[in-house]
Amino acid sequence: MYIMSQTDNLYAERIAKIRSLGYDAVIIAGTDPHSSEYPAPRWKQVEWASGFTGEAGDIVVTQDHAGLWTDTRYFIQANRQLAGTGIELHKTRVPDEVLIPQWLAGHFRRKPVRVAFDGLCQSVGAVRELEDALRQAYGLGGYELVDRPDFLNEWWKDRPAIPHSQVTCLDEKSVGETRREKLDWLRGEMKKAGCGSMFLTSLDEIAWLLNVRGEDIDYNPYVISFLLVTQETAIWFVRNVSEVPAVRDVVNADYAVLEDALEDRRDECGRLFIDPSTLNYHTYKLIRKYFAESEIVFGASPVILRKAVKNKKELDGFRRAFIEDGVAVENFLYWLETSVQGGAQITEWEASEKLTSLRAQIEGYRGNSFENISAYGANAALPHYSTPREGSAVIRPRGLYLVDSGGQYLYGTTDITRTVPMGRCSRQEKEDYTLVLKGMIDLTLAVFPEGTAGCQIDAFARGPLWAARRSFGHGTGHGIGFYLGVHEGPQSIRQNFNPQPMLPGMVTSNEPGLYREGKHGVRHENVVLCREEGKSEFGTFLGFETLTCCHIDTSIVVRKLLDERERNWLRSYNRVVYRMLKSRLAPEVARWLKKKCR
Amino acid sequence: MYIMSQTDNLYAERIAKIRSLGYDAVIIAGTDPHSSEYPAPRWKQVEWASGFTGEAGDIVVTQDHAGLWTDTRYFIQANRQLAGTGIELHKTRVPDEVLIPQWLAGHFRRKPVRVAFDGLCQSVGAVRELEDALRQAYGLGGYELVDRPDFLNEWWKDRPAIPHSQVTCLDEKSVGETRREKLDWLRGEMKKAGCGSMFLTSLDEIAWLLNVRGEDIDYNPYVISFLLVTQETAIWFVRNVSEVPAVRDVVNADYAVLEDALEDRRDECGRLFIDPSTLNYHTYKLIRKYFAESEIVFGASPVILRKAVKNKKELDGFRRAFIEDGVAVENFLYWLETSVQGGAQITEWEASEKLTSLRAQIEGYRGNSFENISAYGANAALPHYSTPREGSAVIRPRGLYLVDSGGQYLYGTTDITRTVPMGRCSRQEKEDYTLVLKGMIDLTLAVFPEGTAGCQIDAFARGPLWAARRSFGHGTGHGIGFYLGVHEGPQSIRQNFNPQPMLPGMVTSNEPGLYREGKHGVRHENVVLCREEGKSEFGTFLGFETLTCCHIDTSIVVRKLLDERERNWLRSYNRVVYRMLKSRLAPEVARWLKKKCR
Repeated sequence: MYIMSQTDNLYAERIAKIRSLGYDAVIIAGTDPHSSEYPAPRWKQVEWASGFTGEAGDIVVTQDHAGLWTDTRYFIQANRQLAGTGIELHKTRVPDEVLIPQWLAGHFRRKPVRVAFDGLCQSVGAVRELEDALRQAYGLGGYELVDRPDFLNEWWKDRPAIPHSQVTCLDEKSVGETRREKLDWLRGEMKKAGCGSMFLTSLDEIAWLLNVRGEDIDYNPYVISFLLVTQETAIWFVRNVSEVPAVRDVVNADYAVLEDALEDRRDECGRLFIDPSTLNYHTYKLIRKYFAESEIVFGASPVILRKAVKNKKELDGFRRAFIEDGVAVENFLYWLETSVQGGAQITEWEASEKLTSLRAQIEGYRGNSFENISAYGANAALPHYSTPREGSAVIRPRGLYLVDSGGQYLYGTTDITRTVPMGRCSRQEKEDYTLVLKGMIDLTLAVFPEGTAGCQIDAFARGPLWAARRSFGHGTGHGIGFYLGVHEGPQSIRQNFNPQPMLPGMVTSNEPGLYREGKHGVRHENVVLCREEGKSEFGTFLGFETLTCCHIDTSIVVRKLLDERERNWLRSYNRVVYRMLKSRLAPEVARWLKKKCR
Repeated sequence: MYIMSQTDNLYAERIAKIRSLGYDAVIIAGTDPHSSEYPAPRWKQVEWASGFTGEAGDIVVTQDHAGLWTDTRYFIQANRQLAGTGIELHKTRVPDEVLIPQWLAGHFRRKPVRVAFDGLCQSVGAVRELEDALRQAYGLGGYELVDRPDFLNEWWKDRPAIPHSQVTCLDEKSVGETRREKLDWLRGEMKKAGCGSMFLTSLDEIAWLLNVRGEDIDYNPYVISFLLVTQETAIWFVRNVSEVPAVRDVVNADYAVLEDALEDRRDECGRLFIDPSTLNYHTYKLIRKYFAESEIVFGASPVILRKAVKNKKELDGFRRAFIEDGVAVENFLYWLETSVQGGAQITEWEASEKLTSLRAQIEGYRGNSFENISAYGANAALPHYSTPREGSAVIRPRGLYLVDSGGQYLYGTTDITRTVPMGRCSRQEKEDYTLVLKGMIDLTLAVFPEGTAGCQIDAFARGPLWAARRSFGHGTGHGIGFYLGVHEGPQSIRQNFNPQPMLPGMVTSNEPGLYREGKHGVRHENVVLCREEGKSEFGTFLGFETLTCCHIDTSIVVRKLLDERERNWLRSYNRVVYRMLKSRLAPEVARWLKKKCR
């Protein structure tokens, strides 16, 4: 029999409080006022209300139901964390998914339906979708949307403050483009869109445009802020303005004076460009006080694509970052293998800490780019395994260990996964290991015409697994920022239809995997740079250059599953890794790596 | 210097007449009242106005401009046929395409903008797109849409009548499902969609549902008609009702009484389902006289998907059709090779006629499924080459000859392309031939999880060409109807994002190609059936069975460009073809085929 714990009671009480507001439905979205993928603790309201700690999830509370919407990555975790809270799991990214707008559109019988949310944490786009669904279902006047900014504060007494950490101005020589050049480019884009001004809300776009970085969010070097760019001025709205260094070509202003600035600069702004997918609804309403709808141009921010195509300096930085990072990972793998084979009892957590400590020695290290995944045996079958500090598994001298990690450096961001045979492996482990590797190599070697999008080449990575009746459920590749988010758009390599073509200069991960619940998990991840691979009468062709510099263990490769081209790539890759790193490693590590790379 | 010909004058005069109507813009769409891909001569209004004979094209005439919008397949042809008419080519399916609605939205300065069209030849969906674009550009009240059914009749004195040919009722045993079963199924779907009735407009859907075929349109065995299905009745609105045989479970009525029927049956209909992508705007307005917008449910017709998934009887028929068709094509290829090598002067046109005559001998033959493409040498570099009756090229005993053709049989529809080495071939011809074949084989051998869409496996066919910096611009695969259109949806295998998953029972072409202007063209096309290829803990996997039964010439295959798996497939395919066909061929042809299949 299940006995309700105190914790369950806690969440049940919190849901009851939310219900007591008296709305037909209350939405608690798991993001911040900037639509960040990884919000600061201040905006972990989904965790506060439900105990669910996954990186994506939204809650809806009605008078007769409480539900959490989250995707395939978190089903197991959500089921565990929601048990006993009375909150039900609604699955997304499944074929029969019913998203929140559709669910709300089908749930109520009495009109008008009153739906409340914190407009600071809902994008304009999300509210539009909600409104479209409700209007269709209940008719104009059949529903009401209520924006209640920060409404949880009443009960969430220890809610963390909005962070305002140290701001770093990057050396403009090292990033290849000055703030002035970037602002001039943006002003040109604004003109093309028929706008006199643009209001930027996405934190990575602002950080890129201003060549600044912060520490406001774990793993993501952003400064929580907004940016208003007109043809004459750029005003950066930050918290604690007195502590933020002055940056040339930009006026710093306090977050709190945003409304005054909009009023004062109304004429200077002309038509205003906004991106509804990241601007929050509450701030949009503020803007609408001074701008009629016809004076606003809605569109995808041009910064997203421009930021994804790296310039020469950024690529120089990336190359350096992947070499420095490779040294740290090789030292880690050497330490792990010799320790475990020497009989040491290393836990997943200890391994993770060791890896972080090795990265921390690198010049220009600014932290990890995401939470290390250090997973042994069956734990690696959870693609988003979160290594527990206490009681994590001991890594034994057999089977597979998976480590997915990355660093933030002043000169680039890294992301690498290695699956490491710790000793004897089963036939199935060896086959899975080889087939995933085959997929990674086939995507690495892919050549495709200009204009091809990621989902049109994703099959190269999946084909070898499919042929063996195996498959994996996550994406194959995501864009990677330059000392910015380890996930960035607009490109991706996955099954989803994303029309963005791969462009020369884009830096993307290449990470097929395979997961057998209760048994093992395999993922191989290199980061690749899209580059030109030749022209012909049929046009320009593109392909990939691998940036990641860390050997791939060949000891359990099932040779006959790779063809000659794939074997050649693997041989040549390991050879290059050894050549690049040997002089930077201690002699015993270099000797070890030489053997590994043979 | 260009001298205007009489023909050019003709089209210039016709454009002037259209202009004289006094509208800001007149649209002439290249389709019929059923949104057919291939309309009957009655609806070749684009050809009447411009001389352009491509299978896809729309015209816009303003007071200062006349333009033809068509896609990549027809650029060369359009440039040739429009020369001297004053009509400009607007390219579609290119990255910077500007479609008609957007073009009209950007063209005018004076409001209101009055746009006229023949509402019989514009789908509701097309008019909606037009209206959305005009509303955004010119505001509500800033534009006016004028529906002028059959407005060309005033000048087009010899316009062909609406055809009404013989109707064939298919043997319900041979198609696997009775009309009654199909109607019952549709009534269930209507209920699920919350509708009491459905108005069907697409000719292939009606033919499939009623198990009838006609000859109203070249190559497409349809009966020009509409169908109204309620929970009690099914009323088939046809031309010349007295000549149409009575079919059980359906009431025949004249096309002309459509409006009366809608009025009389208003209550019986309840909510009405329509597919805006095929219903024409004029008929929609008729419907709207009796149905408020809220009493109409808009959606994709459920018949499209159901029709695409073939039942066992239909597949039996298809298998038979591909064998019968294979015999005809093998006889053709034997005749062609021996004739040309024997010194006969065979033209492309004569070859095409010969092939048709061989198909015509097959029991159940009802015509070709599209116009034969019979193209030698550089002519084959035009993917949609139309073989001229007079002055077509002589097929020489060297280089490549391409033949793309198909038949309509009472028991199925075929479509096959073979590229045939007629003698000595260049290195490039051999390589291109082999790489295209490699792509076709790789797609044939593809295995993929349930839920995978065509664009997610298209790369398997293109990869070998891409790797050699070569590519082709058309789709790789289209659905094929059962004694219906040789092109049908909803599935496709191409770069375009089409979310429809491949499903077991779908019959689709597999036809990569390569075209070198002025030199040669290669296309290999087999038709494949999607089927289950095994289950595992990762789900159900699908793959393809090849239905086409006709050998592939291996004499110019560059062996080292194929891997072992591909060579095995080719060997085994030719072996099966020979085994299946040998007893149906004359001894000398069987002997010849045996050699070809070695």
